[in-house]
This record gives sequence, C-alpha cells and structure tokens, in this order.
Amino acid sequence: MKSVGRHMILELWQCENLNSIDIVERALRDIVRACDLTLLDLRVYPFSPVGVTGVAVVSESHVMVHTWPELGYAAVDIFTCGEERNPADAVPLLREYFTPGRIQVMEMTRGIIDD
Amino acid sequence: MKSVGRHMILELWQCENLNSIDIVERALRDIVRACDLTLLDLRVYPFSPVGVTGVAVVSESHVMVHTWPELGYAAVDIFTCGEERNPADAVPLLREYFTPGRIQVMEMTRGIIDD
Repeated sequence: MKSVGRHMILELWQCENLNSIDIVERALRDIVRACDLTLLDLRVYPFSPVGVTGVAVVSESHVMVHTWPELGYAAVDIFTCGEERNPADAVPLLREYFTPGRIQVMEMTRGIIDD
Repeated sequence: MKSVGRHMILELWQCENLNSIDIVERALRDIVRACDLTLLDLRVYPFSPVGVTGVAVVSESHVMVHTWPELGYAAVDIFTCGEERNPADAVPLLREYFTPGRIQVMEMTRGIIDD
C-alpha cells in the first residue's frame, strides 16, 4: 500500500547537552542535511528554568526536538514524506550530539492510502 | 508509572479546507485554547501547488498539522505535557474545521519514567 510519509518517534534517555539551544540548532541542521530534506524554517525556543524546543519545518514535513534536561530526556520526531527519504539517517547525529545512554525508536507509517 | 507527556497522533481523511492557511491557523489557535495550552509561536506555511503546514509551539510541547489536499488527508500531532492537559479536546475542533469523513486516533505516552 502507498503512504504519505514515515514518522520516526525517538525517546532519548541519559542525554547530555539538552539545555543548549546551540547544540539543538546544530543537531536539527545536520539532521535536515543528513536526511536530504529541504529546510523552510528552523526555530529554537529556550524554556525557563531549563529545556529547549527546536523545530525544523521542511518541505518533506518536520523535525522536532523537545528536551527535559532535568530528566536527561529528549523527545524527537522526524516526519518525512517521499520514499527516498530515510529518517533513520538522523540517529547517528542524535547519538553524536546528545550521547544518549538509551534510545527507543519507533516508526509509524503516516497516511496509508487504501486504494 | 510517571511520564512526560501525551502525544496524540491523528489521521484525517476525506477532509475539506485543507488548502486554506486561514483555516489551518484558526484551527491551531482554537486547539491551543481548547486544550488550555500556552502559545509561544504559531506559524503556517503554504506549499506549492497545494498543501499547508501549520505549527503551534506551546509551553506544553506542540501542535502540528500537515495537509495533502489532493488526497483529502491531514496528519495532525498534538503533544502535551502536564497531566491536566487532554489532547482529545482538540478532536471536536478538527471535525469542525476539516469535516473529515474518517478519523483515526492514536495516543502514545512519551517519556515514561521507569523509577
């Protein structure tokens, strides 16, 4: 069956660098490049007292990062459309930037077309 | 077990108004209000030839809409943290704005804390 896109959902634990807006922005830029996505907009929002949200809006959908430094946890979503795109290409970069001790990865197929 | 948030994933089919940046923006604003979220930023991006992406960044995470008017399909994600928030409060508004003939709803618990 055809589908619209792939939505990778990642849970990162025991992470570092979760309160750095610079690292979150660099991670998003590198993920966009590694997944061969077309960047439309990239914004990073710091939270008080800690935490960062970063979003890259791309032609192929989005990449989103929310961090909870106090828990060592980051929620990451990578939604790509186009069959030649593979959100799994982001995983080595997430390991590099946030050095998670544990990653859980799920992938959902979005927009399954029942012909 | 405690967790960080609730991530509702919705697949909307047989929709109307999917190419309207105005409707997508109004839907996002009303969802933010209905779910008692704190809006930090709201942006809507039109695509060529058709399609809209809308994102509301909120203190409690995000609301994201991607539309494919040519398929009558919209992918919606509502990620909320804080136990008093209920992303299901968005569903009546999605029905009102996009009049889907069919909705599939899933909910994932994000950031489950294994004490």
